[in-house]
Parts: sequence; C-alpha cells; structure tokens
Amino acid sequence: MSENISVLGLGLMGTALAGSLLAAGHQVTVWNRTPAKAEPLLAKGAKQAATPEEAVAASPLVIVCLLDYPSVTATLAGARLEGRIIANLTTGRPAEARETAAWVAGRGGEYLDGGIMAVPQMIAQPGALILYSGSEPAFERYEAALAAMAEARFTGADPGLAPLLDLAMLTGMYGQIAGLLEAAALVRSAGYPLTDFVSSLLVPWLNAMAAQQPLWAGKMESGDHSTEVSNLEINRAGVENLVRAFYEQGVKPDLLLPLKAVIDQRTARGLGHEGLSGLVEELQP
Amino acid sequence: MSENISVLGLGLMGTALAGSLLAAGHQVTVWNRTPAKAEPLLAKGAKQAATPEEAVAASPLVIVCLLDYPSVTATLAGARLEGRIIANLTTGRPAEARETAAWVAGRGGEYLDGGIMAVPQMIAQPGALILYSGSEPAFERYEAALAAMAEARFTGADPGLAPLLDLAMLTGMYGQIAGLLEAAALVRSAGYPLTDFVSSLLVPWLNAMAAQQPLWAGKMESGDHSTEVSNLEINRAGVENLVRAFYEQGVKPDLLLPLKAVIDQRTARGLGHEGLSGLVEELQP
Ligand SMILES: NC(=O)c1ccc[n+]([C@@H]2O[C@H](COP(=O)([O-])OP(=O)(O)OC[C@H]3O[C@@H](n4cnc5c(N)ncnc54)[C@H](OP(=O)(O)O)[C@@H]3O)[C@@H](O)[C@H]2O)c1
Ligand SMILES: NC(=O)c1ccc[n+]([C@@H]2O[C@H](COP(=O)([O-])OP(=O)(O)OC[C@H]3O[C@@H](n4cnc5c(N)ncnc54)[C@H](OP(=O)(O)O)[C@@H]3O)[C@@H](O)[C@H]2O)c1
Repeated sequence: MSENISVLGLGLMGTALAGSLLAAGHQVTVWNRTPAKAEPLLAKGAKQAATPEEAVAASPLVIVCLLDYPSVTATLAGARLEGRIIANLTTGRPAEARETAAWVAGRGGEYLDGGIMAVPQMIAQPGALILYSGSEPAFERYEAALAAMAEARFTGADPGLAPLLDLAMLTGMYGQIAGLLEAAALVRSAGYPLTDFVSSLLVPWLNAMAAQQPLWAGKMESGDHSTEVSNLEINRAGVENLVRAFYEQGVKPDLLLPLKAVIDQRTARGLGHEGLSGLVEELQP
Repeated sequence: MSENISVLGLGLMGTALAGSLLAAGHQVTVWNRTPAKAEPLLAKGAKQAATPEEAVAASPLVIVCLLDYPSVTATLAGARLEGRIIANLTTGRPAEARETAAWVAGRGGEYLDGGIMAVPQMIAQPGALILYSGSEPAFERYEAALAAMAEARFTGADPGLAPLLDLAMLTGMYGQIAGLLEAAALVRSAGYPLTDFVSSLLVPWLNAMAAQQPLWAGKMESGDHSTEVSNLEINRAGVENLVRAFYEQGVKPDLLLPLKAVIDQRTARGLGHEGLSGLVEELQP
C-alpha cells in the first residue's frame, strides 16, 4: 500500500532512507536544511518541501533523521504536530528520547523513536535492522512501510528503549573492539602475522565464546552466578598472569585493567566461587 | 603408529590428555605427585612410574601438564633430559616458556611449548586446539601422536609464541566479556528481558562485527589506518554519548572508560580522521 511519508534530513542516512521508501512506491516529501541535497531524490520522484512546516503538513508519517536531538526539536519547533506520527531515527540517548516523546505529545503528536543498526549502504538490504520504541499503535499502523527501510522491530512503549538497546549493542561492540586492539598489540609484539592470527584463531574463538553469552544472560536474569566452567578465583589468577605478560612484552594492558579491578573487587567480597556473570552486579547501584 | 609417551601431571587436564593418547593406542606411562589419581588410567592400560625420573626415562616424548612453570622445573629437576622431547602444556607466560626452553636445552633435551585452547571435556573432540611452538623437528616427529589430543598447530620457533597466542585469544575473549557485562547492565537498567536481548540482538551483531576484524588486522599490518566507515572523531562523540547514557541510567561504564581515554588521546594527536584500528599504536611503545 502506497503511503504519504515525509523525510526530514537528507544526510547520508536520510537520503538512503528516503530512497528506500521511494523504491517501495511510497509518496515521499523531503526537506533538508541545505536544499540542494534533495536533487537525486527529486529525480526519483520525491517532492521537495520548502520548510519543515510544509514537510510535516504533507504527510501523516514524518521520519526525522538529523544530526542530533537538539536539531530535531529546533527543526520541528514551528510545525503543527496534531495527528502526525513523528518517527525520530536520529541517534541519541534514552533520556533525550523520553524528553522528545513528551515534547511531541505536548504538541498533540504521536512519537516513535528508532535506533538504526546499519550504515547507509545497508539500508533496504538483508541484515539491516531498525529498533523502534514508543507508540505501539503508530508502529503497527506503519509497520509495512517502515519495513521498506530495514527489518523493523518494536521493543516497547518506553520511548527510551530503542536508543538504549542500540547503545547496548554498540557497547558490546566496543568491548569486542577493545579486546581485538589488546590482542593485536600482543601478537604484534611477538612479530607473528596478525591477519593470520585474527582470521584463523581469534574470530572462530570469539564466535564460539559469543555462543555462550545467552547462557550467561540466563544466569544474570536468575541471579544464580554459580559456574561449572571457571570461577572468579581462577579468572583472577588468569588475568593477573595476562597483565604481567603484557608488561613483559612491553605492551600496555590498559583496556583490560578495569575488568581486572572488578574481578578483584568481587573476589574480595568473598564471591570468588562465582562465575564471571556475577560481575554485572558490580556495575549497577 | 603406536608411540611410547609419558604424561606428567594427572589433574583434570593431564588425565584427559593421557586418556586420549591411550584411546589412540599409544603406550602411555604416567606420573602424578598424588599417585592415586592414576588409577582410572591404569585401568585403561597406562603404566605408572614411581618418580618423574622414571617417567622421563620411559619415553622419548614427555608431555607435562602441571599447575604452573615453577612446578614443571621442580618436577623435572632430577631427570635425565638428553634425547628427550619435553612438550610442556602447562599454562604460562611467553617469558616463562622461553626460560624453560633454555633450561631444557641446557640439559640436552628438545622443547615444545603448548597452549591448550580447550577444557578437559573437549579433549579429543572436534573444536579442541593446541598451539605449539619451539622445536619444529620435534613437532613434526610427533605431530600425528599429538593430534590424538586435539588439533595440533605449530606456530613458530620462538617457544614463547604458543603461550603468547593463547594469551592473545584470552585477551580477545575478556574484551568481549567486558562488553557483554556493560551491555547487560545497561539493558537491565531499563527492565528489558536480557536473554532475549543477548540471543536475538547482541550475539548476531557481535558475529557480524567479528567478521570485520580481519580487515582491521590488515590495516594494522599495513599501518594504513584510513577508514570509509567511521573515523575516530565520530567514535569519540559516540562513546562520549554512550558514557553519558550510562550515568543517566545509573550504570557504571567503568569497563569502557580506558577505550574512551585512548580514543581521546589519539584524537588529541590530530588523528581523528583515522579509523579505530589506529588505536593499536597507542598500546605499544
Ligand atoms: N551514517 C551512519 O552510518 C549512521 C548509522 C546509524 C545512525 N546514524 C544516525 O543518523 C543521523 C544522521 O546521520 P547521517 O549519517 O545522515 O549524518 P550526516 O550525513 O552528517 O547528515 C546530517 C544531517 O543533519 C542535518 N542537520 C545538522 N544540523 C542541523 C540543524 N541544526 N538543523 C537542521 N538540520 C541539521 C544536516 O543538514 P545539512 O545537509 O543542511 O547539513 C544533514 O541532513 C545521526 O543521528 C546518525 O547518528 C547514522
Ligand atoms: N582445566 C582446564 O580447563 C584447562 C584449560 C587449558 C589449560 N589448562 C592448564 O593445564 C594445567 C593443568 O590444569 P588442570 O586443570 O589439570 O589443573 P588441576 O586439576 O588443578 O591439576 C594440577 C596438577 O598439577 C599438579 N601439581 C600442582 N603443584 C605441583 C607441584 N608443586 N609439583 C608437582 N605437581 C604439582 C597436581 O598434582 P596433585 O594431583 O598431586 O595435586 C595436578 O596433577 C594448568 O596449567 C592449566 O592452566 C587447564
């Protein structure tokens, strides 16, 4: 079914989103602060709005993808939001999403927040995912249209949830990257071919270890941090040995040191018999 | 071909190793400080040596799997090592492996060091891997026999290499675990079901990201840290935002803070246009 959809923001991501909606046969109205960026989309059948107000008036579903949340509220400040669904796919923090949801609701609009788990080149390709949170009726009304951009997954009514899960996935990725950086520095210190190490040893190992993570998550959910594999006491000795090896090789283990500190802290509480999953308790109030 | 092989150390791992060699039809002589632990292996056809000296005298290939390196040299101190190959599979640091190799060579023996990438239950099962380094002729002479315990991979003549690659794989795993712990703490702070998040969002994402690591390794090997995906400046802003979200949710981002510090440090050097791969340079002298 062809829908009227407006897209505000034609940076790299907004342009890819609008392009995927046009390709799916929707009536797309676009607006961008720098109007010239609309040209490739106009050639594909988009209409250009002269102002954000005009763009919001043109369609009941308004997709917003700007630099940050302050630019979103600044851009929408003069628009009439009654009866509009604002789907804000700008990256931000949960607290900002909750504030923006209240701001939109105060102006009579419905709000969806979205976290885009893709780069622009991946939009409308398999593997691209957008997490949504906020108004479930709004999501259900436009689910089919949203799916033209990427797999669309609704996560809950708290508007902060999509950005929170987005940030949690980035957090997992940054941990994996920190591990890669330290491992690579160690391997380089011995002059061993790094690409060979990463391709034939590290990546298969990380994939095997990642497969264990749902079991750990179950332990975190139940609060039962018992283990039959390797307890904190053994990991404490292992990480101490690891850190010493880094110094002997002349490599800085800086990215691993806070994990060591948290293991030491929890072991000092007399919980050395527990598994690593229990460390999550040390990160929360 | 059936070989004469001695195994020193019948803890959980040594028992599994000796059992796999017996199952493959080798003549296995065992020794353990606490002799009673040999009983299950004697029932499977192993011979028991009364002393480490006797065990070393019994076979040209001597596999050692004890608590740590000091216990290895203490145990071998009285044995005649001329014409023997000592394959030391005890976990330790590269520097300890190099010292032990020199100590064995000084007594006329050949030395192989090994890093076991498996738990005892995985020995002789698909997926188990032992990395070897040190004497390549010794490895080649016994490669088939060693393969009965686990996939046997020779990595180089530096005896410290197998323990170093072993530690580098553990390092990568600890980074991934740190990321999981932080991500889990964030997801729990929002009351979202954790196992669902980990299984359906985090693990597929980590596997997709791990698939990029060989490309990063290539950049680290070439020293060309240019990027078309996301530069340090963008990551700096992203991590800053992430850390702020953690504080807003009442969760400690401690395990991520040194990565933030290294990104800030390299950006401050004017290298914000580079990709994350360049951070490896900050970890080395
Ligand atoms: N690119 C990715 O890989 C990716 C992935 C996931 C999420 N995202 C998120 O998607 C959003 C957009 O990213 P992008 O890659 O499209 O960035 P971009 O190419 O830099 O585009 C930024 C957009 O924001 C507009 N803008 C900036 N400040 C503004 C203001 N004060 N008022 C009105 N408009 C303003 C720009 O307008 P002008 O054209 O006039 O400058 C442009 O349309 C960001 O929140 C980003 O985090 C991007
Ligand atoms: N288990 C694993 O998952 C795993 C995985 C990879 C690598 N490893 C490595 O394999 C090695 C052995 O581990 P394990 O799991 O078999 O440990 P374990 O079950 O605790 O066994 C330790 C072994 O070391 C012996 N030992 C300790 N101190 C000694 C000393 N001073 N002199 C002589 N013998 C001594 C013990 O003899 P007694 O029986 O007399 O106490 C026992 O045979 C360790 O280096 C470990 O890091 C283990």
